[in-house]
This record gives sequence, structure tokens and C-alpha cells, in this order.
Amino acid sequence: MIPRYSRPEMTAIWSPETKFRIWYEIEAYASDAQAELGVIPQANADAIWRAKDVEFDVARIDEIEAVTKHDVIAFLTHLAEHIGADEARFVHQGMTSSDVLDTTLNVQLVRAADILLADMDKVLEALKRRAYEHKDTVRIGRSHGIHAEPTTMGLTFARFYAEMARGKARLQAARAEVATGAISGAVGTFANIDPYVEEYVCQKMGLRPEPISTQVIPRDRHAMFFATLGIIASSMENIAIEIRHMQRTEVLEAEEFFSAGQKGSSAMPHKRNPVLTENLTGLARLVRMTVVPAMENVALWHERDISHSSVERGIGPDATITLDFALNRLAGVIDKLVIYPDNMLANMNKFKGLVMSQRVLLALTQAGVSREDAYRLVQRNAMKVWEQGKDFKEELLADPEVTAALPPAEIEEKFDLGYHTKHVDTIFKRVFESNPL
Amino acid sequence: MIPRYSRPEMTAIWSPETKFRIWYEIEAYASDAQAELGVIPQANADAIWRAKDVEFDVARIDEIEAVTKHDVIAFLTHLAEHIGADEARFVHQGMTSSDVLDTTLNVQLVRAADILLADMDKVLEALKRRAYEHKDTVRIGRSHGIHAEPTTMGLTFARFYAEMARGKARLQAARAEVATGAISGAVGTFANIDPYVEEYVCQKMGLRPEPISTQVIPRDRHAMFFATLGIIASSMENIAIEIRHMQRTEVLEAEEFFSAGQKGSSAMPHKRNPVLTENLTGLARLVRMTVVPAMENVALWHERDISHSSVERGIGPDATITLDFALNRLAGVIDKLVIYPDNMLANMNKFKGLVMSQRVLLALTQAGVSREDAYRLVQRNAMKVWEQGKDFKEELLADPEVTAALPPAEIEEKFDLGYHTKHVDTIFKRVFESNPL
Amino acid sequence: MIPRYSRPEMTAIWSPETKFRIWYEIEAYASDAQAELGVIPQANADAIWRAKDVEFDVARIDEIEAVTKHDVIAFLTHLAEHIGADEARFVHQGMTSSDVLDTTLNVQLVRAADILLADMDKVLEALKRRAYEHKDTVRIGRSHGIHAEPTTMGLTFARFYAEMARGKARLQAARAEVATGAISGAVGTFANIDPYVEEYVCQKMGLRPEPISTQVIPRDRHAMFFATLGIIASSMENIAIEIRHMQRTEVLEAEEFFSAGQKGSSAMPHKRNPVLTENLTGLARLVRMTVVPAMENVALWHERDISHSSVERGIGPDATITLDFALNRLAGVIDKLVIYPDNMLANMNKFKGLVMSQRVLLALTQAGVSREDAYRLVQRNAMKVWEQGKDFKEELLADPEVTAALPPAEIEEKFDLGYHTKHVDTIFKRVFESNPL
Amino acid sequence: MIPRYSRPEMTAIWSPETKFRIWYEIEAYASDAQAELGVIPQANADAIWRAKDVEFDVARIDEIEAVTKHDVIAFLTHLAEHIGADEARFVHQGMTSSDVLDTTLNVQLVRAADILLADMDKVLEALKRRAYEHKDTVRIGRSHGIHAEPTTMGLTFARFYAEMARGKARLQAARAEVATGAISGAVGTFANIDPYVEEYVCQKMGLRPEPISTQVIPRDRHAMFFATLGIIASSMENIAIEIRHMQRTEVLEAEEFFSAGQKGSSAMPHKRNPVLTENLTGLARLVRMTVVPAMENVALWHERDISHSSVERGIGPDATITLDFALNRLAGVIDKLVIYPDNMLANMNKFKGLVMSQRVLLALTQAGVSREDAYRLVQRNAMKVWEQGKDFKEELLADPEVTAALPPAEIEEKFDLGYHTKHVDTIFKRVFESNPL
Repeated sequence: MIPRYSRPEMTAIWSPETKFRIWYEIEAYASDAQAELGVIPQANADAIWRAKDVEFDVARIDEIEAVTKHDVIAFLTHLAEHIGADEARFVHQGMTSSDVLDTTLNVQLVRAADILLADMDKVLEALKRRAYEHKDTVRIGRSHGIHAEPTTMGLTFARFYAEMARGKARLQAARAEVATGAISGAVGTFANIDPYVEEYVCQKMGLRPEPISTQVIPRDRHAMFFATLGIIASSMENIAIEIRHMQRTEVLEAEEFFSAGQKGSSAMPHKRNPVLTENLTGLARLVRMTVVPAMENVALWHERDISHSSVERGIGPDATITLDFALNRLAGVIDKLVIYPDNMLANMNKFKGLVMSQRVLLALTQAGVSREDAYRLVQRNAMKVWEQGKDFKEELLADPEVTAALPPAEIEEKFDLGYHTKHVDTIFKRVFESNPL
Repeated sequence: MIPRYSRPEMTAIWSPETKFRIWYEIEAYASDAQAELGVIPQANADAIWRAKDVEFDVARIDEIEAVTKHDVIAFLTHLAEHIGADEARFVHQGMTSSDVLDTTLNVQLVRAADILLADMDKVLEALKRRAYEHKDTVRIGRSHGIHAEPTTMGLTFARFYAEMARGKARLQAARAEVATGAISGAVGTFANIDPYVEEYVCQKMGLRPEPISTQVIPRDRHAMFFATLGIIASSMENIAIEIRHMQRTEVLEAEEFFSAGQKGSSAMPHKRNPVLTENLTGLARLVRMTVVPAMENVALWHERDISHSSVERGIGPDATITLDFALNRLAGVIDKLVIYPDNMLANMNKFKGLVMSQRVLLALTQAGVSREDAYRLVQRNAMKVWEQGKDFKEELLADPEVTAALPPAEIEEKFDLGYHTKHVDTIFKRVFESNPL
Repeated sequence: MIPRYSRPEMTAIWSPETKFRIWYEIEAYASDAQAELGVIPQANADAIWRAKDVEFDVARIDEIEAVTKHDVIAFLTHLAEHIGADEARFVHQGMTSSDVLDTTLNVQLVRAADILLADMDKVLEALKRRAYEHKDTVRIGRSHGIHAEPTTMGLTFARFYAEMARGKARLQAARAEVATGAISGAVGTFANIDPYVEEYVCQKMGLRPEPISTQVIPRDRHAMFFATLGIIASSMENIAIEIRHMQRTEVLEAEEFFSAGQKGSSAMPHKRNPVLTENLTGLARLVRMTVVPAMENVALWHERDISHSSVERGIGPDATITLDFALNRLAGVIDKLVIYPDNMLANMNKFKGLVMSQRVLLALTQAGVSREDAYRLVQRNAMKVWEQGKDFKEELLADPEVTAALPPAEIEEKFDLGYHTKHVDTIFKRVFESNPL
Repeated sequence: MIPRYSRPEMTAIWSPETKFRIWYEIEAYASDAQAELGVIPQANADAIWRAKDVEFDVARIDEIEAVTKHDVIAFLTHLAEHIGADEARFVHQGMTSSDVLDTTLNVQLVRAADILLADMDKVLEALKRRAYEHKDTVRIGRSHGIHAEPTTMGLTFARFYAEMARGKARLQAARAEVATGAISGAVGTFANIDPYVEEYVCQKMGLRPEPISTQVIPRDRHAMFFATLGIIASSMENIAIEIRHMQRTEVLEAEEFFSAGQKGSSAMPHKRNPVLTENLTGLARLVRMTVVPAMENVALWHERDISHSSVERGIGPDATITLDFALNRLAGVIDKLVIYPDNMLANMNKFKGLVMSQRVLLALTQAGVSREDAYRLVQRNAMKVWEQGKDFKEELLADPEVTAALPPAEIEEKFDLGYHTKHVDTIFKRVFESNPL
């Protein structure tokens, strides 16, 4: 976790205080169920709730762990300090540490997912608003970084919207994958605890019972979760790269919002750098790097080894905190992005009319010219624009082989921008009606 | 693609012949739709189908591409050689190469997914059969590689079944993610082609139209696909590691089937090595390594750059062919795995009765001993078993502090194996009823 | 291995024919050493060399392996078919399969490294030539994609040269890391074979003896090898990205060479896309993806498990063949890159004089203005250039607060380009004298 | 950074206090050099050193950065608060922020490398001591987890020593790679600062000048650094996996030291789990995951983009702190590892004499039996041991086809353990003489 790239709400999920609170609730609910089953006395279950408003002393628990070298035992010892050794006698009855640890991790991941889903809604809202705002703002579409044919800025926002909406749907699925809990004992056989306890605790904690666990909840679920975060991060990078390209000095079709006191460079005061989206590009790498170790965590020895644990202590907080921060930053960048429609037009017209070459090519073939010949005719005139700065339409009108096939009026008509934007509404309908916010 | 690790059915999907065949169908269906719209003459659309039974000449196409340095143009030129230059005039009308390439890739991925889903069914069937066969075959459950409490071999198979069933559900979702096609032109605006053509072609090819594309179909879909394969591969590794552990000389609870002529080692004829599952462990790494590049492919420049293409030429075939081979190998390994129930019992009894320590611990606390005291009592007797090879039950019966709390009959009762298997049916019901084959 | 991205010289290293040839040589040399030690009869050692000119029959060996399920035994059986069963009796004496397999792999990696080193020399030569050619070709330096201060095209080539020279030094080190062989028997103890045989074979095969092996040569050596390839690939990507940026329509400071018959796009004939460098960007991902599995291969069980083997069958050929192809492509791209110095000047002057802002800032502080005031003065004039298209020098000359600190002549002097290139020779000396070709 | 897995010495390198201290020193030395060159007044250079003993106020700097959104400017502003705005006027003269940031990062990485090298020495010392201690402790060598031939525990330690010694040599090389600094200005041309300043500052900070930089030091150097850490982590995992295997209940040839108060499990008091080496297995994944993003950082746009920065804020501390902690833990584990030679012997003899099969095979071929026949003879007797628990030597002595070729005395002689350990001294010499501590 990098403090600079973290928000308190998400960070809080991973604090020791939150962790111990969830442990406490699991132990307390499990005792309720055990009492209901008659396995432990009701009074002992009730006693645990007396600590309901206690803020557990993290330093004290660490102190005990330094001796026991076992975190759950340290916590239970500390809990007994609050509710009395005798009353605490039945806490954790029939359970194994992992019952608590794994169920807790999944509660944390579910809560993290809920924050991330809200983050994605912010990104989606910003994208939708900007998409409609610039639905008809024409700019040149580019493939390979080279001018291709006109498109609109709104379509760019709309496709990012569709991509993020897919990401959101994936995250909802990944949240469901990890929304399981297990209270199944040392090797998952429920030998020492009735499955009812698992059902009861899971229901209280907002989870489903894991259908079959070992000592732990299977890690393919978590691998899916982190893989999903990695893909969302990659989609975020996709947006970031687009903005960085748009802000290049030579392109300048958009700029990140530049606040009043901000300094672009210690040396060059005129510089306005796309530092936020460059930062998002890097943050995407940090989220993505957690995917492979999450997958390496899947293959555990027999009923469990603990190699996954240290990995998750790292990537659990890191991936969720970083992505939460990044999505919020992304929403802000999109929301306040300064768009320069005039520069878009100027860029598009850099090579006069050349972007219409495909239309002319088609018109020629429609008029009966063979594809090869049409290609040759278009290319020879296009090269004059490219190399000598000529105007494409004028060159075509002056090429007798072209005009023999296409009358001047038809050539003129091929240079109408509306031709390229005629299906924008159709596409918007596809995108926003199938993925409403 | 490693010939040794490939099966013809999957390899065929990625052959040049298959690729050109799909290209051909896309072009032919697109022409049908264009004719229906009146954009091109019906006769020209019909002419294309004359090549319906042609096997395209890969060498000839390569030859043309050597000149044009453009694969789709090379194919179209070759197609014209079959149906006539004049008849071919309207083929590819209004389309861009990527319309063909990307739609084809997704057809291939969908077909690959269908084979992989069938593979997973084989694995699931084998796991289910072996799970029921060994539902009550008791063996020691292990955590950290250390004996913990009894479980059954059937539960091991059942949890692999549940994990693979989750993998299958994920693959179905990933298949749906990539089951889109795009015929939307140079930058995705449909400027030169009506959206109807896309709908028509997609419907014919078993795909949905991509709601919004650029020159290409967005790569987050493919990232999801490869991430899913990576997770399935990791689950496969999980099973492989279990079998490798079971086959260790000292454990020998199971062995890969060893065929008649097979030689285990050039030097040590007695050796039977778990080479298939070791191989699967390595193949899992090969599949998993494709996940990160698939994610790096998501961020393309503007409406498209072609950096993803070479990556997909590699990982498309590699990941699907390797996983297909591996899943088939896995199904065979599970199917024929030789299980040694006697060794399982012998291993479990290696430290006589020690695996029952948790039951005794619980019984002591139930009988009113404090948790700390109970723990101390159990541990002191357990250590005698561990260090001096004593019998746990006998030691307990001889420990007056223990018998003061627990009468001998109750101690005896704690050593009943049935205690540990009493919920196996419940777990089987959870696993197999919620995930029927 | 993707045929499209492979060169015959490198592919040959990984052919079955080459592999069997190396196996043969290892077995033959080992027999020579064994005869020298008196362990086997000289006549039997000599007999092996009778097969010196045999091209082994891959299909026949595969056929035998189908029965034995062991590749080395299959080969030895086939060898006996050539030299006679009796004569072959002592071949492989005291050796284990991995002695042959691992020594062979390292011979292949060393040969692959030698080709890659030659490839890097081609890249270095091209970079050096272009660096000197454009040593003084001024263009704008950019940070964050935003104009910063002038630099020269030669410096760009020179830094790529320095980076590739570092890559070459790393590859030489990585080659040395894997240039070891082992003939140490089943678990590496030399129980059945004298260390002299290892020394002898290694010396003949151009390797050093592995100081301590198990059944296999330790895989940290190979991890280092693949990591090194991954870094070289990343440096290649660095160059590719630079060229892609330079070729952008709005920048157009350089273009990949575009051959006569080549077609840029099936739809837009004017397009010249940086497809080679985009391709290199993708190929870099393919090489880089082999790094993590190579590291996962390091931890083998005890004296060896075979999980690394399938991984290496994939990444061994894939990484070296892909990088070989890519480096050759890169050398060609650099060699023939078309540079547009006029466009460089035009781009630099897009915001008239603004790139000199840092010099003015420094001059102001030198003249006694506080850093904060100087920053404010420069920024306020810079903003007029940025927002209103004014000329920076003229604005400064018209700003009385500026001229109060700096006389006009001094302001004029700050706009001299030579100021920025005065240390180019120093830098070239640093780069090319410390890394001669 | 995970507090649980960090040591103060390494963590301190990455604290804001250390960072600002290094920034300060760089600025102060740069000013010294500038004064020496006559670029700034000596008095101003001297003034900076007045802050020599200041502990910079991190909170105050953060406060300023919240306004300027630029960390270096915030620091310089704060520095001016200490030494006076007028005196601070020439601080940072001609430099760009990255001159400070990148040189600082490399100072931090060099210091981190020095700690890691010391850590590796601890690991090497422990391995060497244990290697000599158990040089002749015979245990069974295993391939594929299956018994192969005898080896010694000392050889296992010795090979880990050799592997770690290679890791140390690689780390020394990686340290040298990042031991460069750059004070070369906005785009690396030294336009505004003389190369002498770079030389002077680097010499003072223990670095070499970067031969050619842009705004930043090229990131292939850092990629090499992190790749090296990833390989060392993988070697660490290799050792950890070996220990985990040895501690398995059925093997029990070694155990991690188990301290007095430690509790193995909340439920099963007899359990002693290899939790430290399982933890190291996970930590290896955490270190390794930083390799790919470090490689993705290499390709920056033009003279620099800032995408690498956030990545390094994460992986810089994370990889070094985690590996430092892990290597120290590893040294402790090795140092205190409890070895059970009796269990080693018992395991080896589990299949009576079977591990000698290769010797017998060789003896038979030496005695004139064809390789195929010898193999058959050995395998048929070996199978009786494997399947019926017979004694291998007795079976051989009772097999007339065997005794026809080998007299009983010779058969007896093949079962001598000394045969397998005769080259241990040779190997130790190879390992420890070529890699002295």
C-alpha cells in the first residue's frame, strides 16, 4: 500500500481494527449457533456479546502473538481478557483458525468489491455524460497512430463506457465468487462442528457457505477476483493512454484539468503534463502484477499449506487500495477533461481530404472500376497529398482517369462529414440501452 | 505450439486452412447481406459461393502476401483467382481487414472454448466417478504437509470436482465474452457499411454483434478469456500437485497408471515416476504465462494499433492447444489413477492415535477443563507419541489428570473414525447436486 | 514458435535433428572418456563414431518412444540399430537421461545466445551509423509527450545504442551462466561415473562442468537467461515505441521504410502504418512472458522433478526464435528508417520559442530575480504563447518586468539552438568509446 | 510493504526522511560543484550546508506539495524556509526534478543491495556450516519425489550454497547496473548544467555518471535489478520447498526449529508445521511479481513519461523489504534446522536395497549381459521388492539368471553405501573453493 495512492475508506477495510472486528463477529455468531444447537451453554454465547462495543487493542494482541506465534490464539486470549477466561471457555469451539481467517478475508474482499463497484459507477457516469456532450464532436479516427477516417469524441467515450460496463459486470461476478465463508474445521469435514454453524455465520456475514472446503476456502475463487481487477486496471490503462495521446503537444485534442497553483515542471513553466493519466498507466501495472501470484496461490498442498497467506497479506490490500484510488482519479480526470474541438478539426484537415480516400475507392468500384484499378487511382492521388501537400479533392477532380468513372458532383459528395457520423445514434443506443447505469 | 503437447482437433482450429475458410465464409455472408440491401448485385454475391468447396491454396496466398505484405488482400486476390476478377469486384465492399480478422479470431476462440468445455466434462466425469468410488476411503487429512485429522479420498475428488465445475462455469462466461463479431469498417463508424451486414454475418457465424468497436473488437474480452484459461490451468496444477504428493515413495497412497512397455528411468528400473502430473504442472505454467500479455494487449492506441496481433498469433493457439492437451491428459490420469487404501490407513496410523488430539481437546473443554489446561494436557501426551512412538490413547488413559476429567470409556469413544466421516454425504450432496454434469 | 516470426538459422537449433545430433556427440564423447579411464573397451567407444555421418531418423525414434515412453531410451535403441546391439552395449554407461538432456539444452541455449549476440551487433551497428548521421539533427525533446527542450536525433539513437550495448553485455553474462554441462548421474553424486567424463564432455561441447548438480543442472541459471531475454525485448520495445510515436500523422518525424508493392491498408491507400514496430511491441510481450515461468521452474522437488521440462520445450525455442526474428527486424527498421529533419524543425517551432523558457528562467535567477518571481514571469509570458499563439521572445521583450532584469540582447541570446547541442560530442564520446562495436 | 514482513534497517532506506536527506545532499553537492565552476556564488553553496543537521519536516513538505502538486518544488520551498529564500536562490540551478529523483532512487537501490548482500552472506554462512556438518549424513536422493540413489544431506546444503553464491554474484552485478546518477537537465543534454556537476555529485554519492540519460536514467537498469531479486527469491523458494518436503509427516528428515511458547495449531497441539518455509514460498511470489512491471517500465515515451514512477514507489520498497526479511528468515531457518539422520536412514531402507538397482544394472552389463537383458533382470527382481516387500539383494542372489552373470560376492559388494559418497569431497571442493565467503 502506497499512502500517496490510497483512500481512507478502502484502507480501513484492511486495518487490524477491522480485521479483529470481523474475527469477533464470526466468533460471536458461531457461538450463538453452537448454543442454539446445545453444544455450548447459552450464557457463554451471550457473554461474548458483552464485548460488542470494545475496540480491541491491537498492540496488546501483537504482544501476545509475539509469544504464541499464532495470531488467532493471540486474539482469543485477548478476547478472554475482556469477557473473562471462564466465559470465553467455549469461544472458537470446534473451529480451526482458518475458519475465521478465510471467512474474514472474503468479507473484506466483498466489502472492497462494493467500494470498487461504486467507483466504477463514478467512472461510468463521467463517461456517459462526456459521451453525450461530445456525441457529435467530429475528430479523426486513427489506426496505427495514422489518420484513418472521421469519428466522434462521443464514440470514444462511449466505447470506454461499454468497456467499463463489462468490467463492472465482471466485478459483480468476481464478488459473487468470493462471497463464501467456511466454518468446517481442521480439514473441512465438519467433524467437530455442525454444518449449521457455517450456514448461520455465513448468513449473518452476508456470505454463502462454501460447498466444500479443506482447511481453507479454495483459492481459485481469489485468483478469479484478482484477475478481474487486473482486467479492469488494463481497461483503465486503455483510457489513460488515449488521454495521454490526445494531450501530446502536436495533437492537443484534450488536456487534463490543470488547477490554479499546480506547477507542471520545476524547469519549464509552460508545461502541462498528463501526469494523472501517466500515473494511472503505472498504477495499472501495480494492480496487474497481483494476478500471477494469485494464480500461483491456487495449488496448495493437500488440505492446505500456508504459502498463499503472505501473498494475500500483500496483494489483498495492495490491489484493492490501488485500484480504488486509481478509479477515483480516473473518474475525476474524465469529468474535468478539457476538450479542444477546434484542434480536432485542425488535425483532421492536416492532409486535406485524404481521410476520404476509402469513400472514393468504394465509389470507384461501385462505378465499375476493378478493385485493383480503383486502388491504384486512389493511391496515386493520395500520394500527392501526402508528399506534396496537395488537396485530395482537387487532385481527383483533375485526374481524367478518375473523372471518367466518377462525375465531379459525385466526387464532391464524397467529402461530406455527415456520411461518417450517420450511425452514431445507432451505436449510442446499442451501448447505453444495454448497459444503463 | 509444442507438437508433443497437442491434439489434432484443437490444432485444426488454428490451421491456415481453417482460418481462410472462416475468412471466406465471412466475406460470402457479408456479400449476401450487401446484396440484400441492394448495395452490390445479387449475382456477385452468388458468385462467391461458387468457391464453397474450394480448399484454398495456402502456399499461393503466402506467395501473394510476400508481395502485398498484407494478408487479407492476398487472400482476396487469391479468391478472385477462383471466382473471377470481375465477379470478385464487390467482395469485401465497405469492410476493413480487421472486420474479417477479428471476427475470425473470435470464431476460433469460441470453437476452442467448445472443445475445452468438452474436455472439462471428461475431467468432471472422471472426478465424479472416482469421488463416489472412494467416498468412504478414509485417509489422513494434512495441513502444511503434516497429519491433521481424517478425511476421505472421495472428499478430495469431490473438491476437485467442485473447483473444476467452477472453472467450467467461468469458461462458459468467457466464451460468451468473446462470442462477438464486428463488421463496422475502418474506425468502427459503419460509415461505409450498414450495421445490418454485421448483424447478418454474426448471426450466421454464431456470434453477437459487438455493440461498439473501433477498427477492432475491444481486447478486454480476450484478456478475460485468457485469464480464465490461466485459472483453469492453475486448478489443474492443484490436482496434479496432490497426485504427485500421493505418489511420493514415503506416502504412496496413489500412483499414476503405469503401462506395460513404459520405462520409468534409463538407470533405475524400479522407478515409477508421476511424470504425467509433473508434466501437467509445467503445462499449467505455459498456459498461465499467456495471461499478462493478454492484459497488456488491452490498451491499444486510439482506434487501434496492431501490437496485439503478434501476441495473439502466439497465445491464441498456444494456450488453447496446451490446455486442451493437458485437460485430456488430466482426465486420463484421474480415470486410471491407482489408489492404495491400505497405505492410506498405514500412513494415518503412523503416529498412533495422534490425529484424534483435537477431539480429545474438545472433550476436555466440554468436561469443564479450561482451554489452556486442556491444550497443555493434550500437548504433553501428544509429545510422547511424537517423540517416543507411544500410543496416544494409552498415554491418555494413563494420565490421571486426563482421566480425572474424562472417564476411560469416553476417551475410547473419541477414537472412532466414523466421527470424522459423518458429514461426507452432506458435503457430497452440496457438491454434486448443485453442479450436475 | 510462430512460423511468420522465425528465421531458419535459429529454428534449426531447436529441430529434432539438431537435438539428436547433440545427444549423439555427448554419448560418443562420454564413451571416449570412459574408454580412456578403462571403464569400457576402446573398441566400443570407437564403434559409436561409425555413426558420425548418420542423419538420425526422427520418425523411427518417435516410433520407439511411443512404446518405451522415454525419449533417451528410444534414441539409444535407435543408435544401436545403426552401430549394432553388441557394440552399443556400453553407450550411456553410468549416465542418466538428464545428463544428456540438460547438457544438450545448454548447448542449444549457448548457440542461440551466439546468434542473438550477432543480431544485437546488427542492431548496434545500425544504431551507431544512424546516430552519427543525425548527431546534429535538432529536434524537440519531449517529456510526458509534451515539448520540453531541444535535443538531437543522434542522441536518441545513441541512447538506444547504449541501452542495447548494456543488453549485449547482459546476454554475454547470461550465456556464460548457462554454458555448463553435467554428466553426474542419477542424483548428481558421480556414483556410477567419474567426474573426468563430465570434464571431458564439457570441454568438447564448449561448456564448463556444473560444479554441483542433482539429476539436473540448477534452473536459476536458465531463469537468468530468460530474464535477460525479457529485458532485451523490453529495450527493443522502447525503441519501437519511439518510432511509432515519430510516425504518428501529427508528428511525422520518421517513417518505417515502405517498399514498392506494399499496401498499407485494404481500405485507405494513403496509409503508411508503423506495422513493423507495432509488431515488435507485441513480440516483446511474447518474449517477456517467458520470464515468470522460467523463474517458477527454479524450485524443483528434491534432486529433481520434471515440471520444468514441458515449460522449456515451449519457452526455449519460443523466446529465442522470437527474439532473433525481432532483433533482425529491428536492425532493418533502424537501418532504413526514413528521417524527416524538416518536420522536426517545424514541430519544434509549433509554439514559437516556448521551448526556451527554462533558459530564460535561469537567466532571470542569475540576474538576481528570486526563483519564485522568475517562475511567475516566465509562466505568464509562456501562457500567452500557449493560449494565444504569440511568439515567446517577442512577449518577453515586451514585458517591462522581464526587461528590467534582462537586457534585450541577453534575451535574444537565450534563443540560440547551439546552446542545447554543445555537449553532444561529450555524450557521444561517453557512449561510443566505452562501448565500441 | 507488509509490516509483519519487514526489518527496520531496510524500511529506513525508503522512509520520507531518508529520501529528503538524499535529495538534500544531492542539491548541496550540486551547488558545491556549480560554485566551483563559478556558475553560482560560493556563499550560496555554503549556505545550503547550514541545514546539514536539519531533520526535514515531512508533514510541512506534504502540506506545500498539496498546493504545488510537485514534490521537488515542495521540498525546495521547505529548504528555503530553513536557509533563507535569498540564500536558496541558486539551489537546483540548471537541474530538473528527475536529476534529483532518479539519482536518489539509485542511491536507495544501492543501499538496499548492500543490505541484501549482507543478508545473502548470512544465508551462505549458515548453508556452509550445515553443509560441512552433514557432509557425510547419508540420505536417499529423490527424483520425481521417488527414491533414486543415495546422496548426502551435506550435498543438499552445498548445492543451495552454490545457487545462493550465484545469486550473490548476480546481485553484485545488478547493484553495479543501478549505481549510476544523472544531473543532465530537462532532456539529458546538459544544456543548462555542466557535465562536471554530474561527475562531482555522483562521486560524492557513490555512483557513476550515467553515460547518456534523457530526463531520466534508463529503466533497463532497474528491470535488471528487479529481475535479479526475482531470481534470488526463486532460489530461496527452492530451499524452502526442500525443507517443507523434509518436514512432511511421512518423511520427517528435518524440522524447522520449534520454540518453547509456540503453538502449532489452535486445534491440534501435536502439530509442528513448516510455517516459516511456507511463508518464504509465498514471499518469493511477492518478490517475483515485481519483475514484469519493472520490465514494462522500460519503454517510456520519448525523453520520458512518468508511468514508471508509481510502479517504483510500490515495487522499490516492496521487493527489497520483502526479500531482506525473507533472506534473514531463511538464514535463521537453515541455521536452526533440526536434522534427523536416523529418519533419513529409515526412509532410505523403506524398499530394501532397491536404490542399488542401477549399480546392479551396470554390473550386469559390465559382465557382458546386453543392456536390454540386464534391464529386464533388474526390473523383474525390483518389482518383487516394490510389490511384495521382498529384499532386493536376497532376490538377486536367488535369481539364477543373475548369479550366472554375477557371482554372489560381487552382488554383495554392490550394496556398499560408500560407493555413493566417494566423490563428495571432490564436489565440496568445487563448490566451496570457487565461491569462498
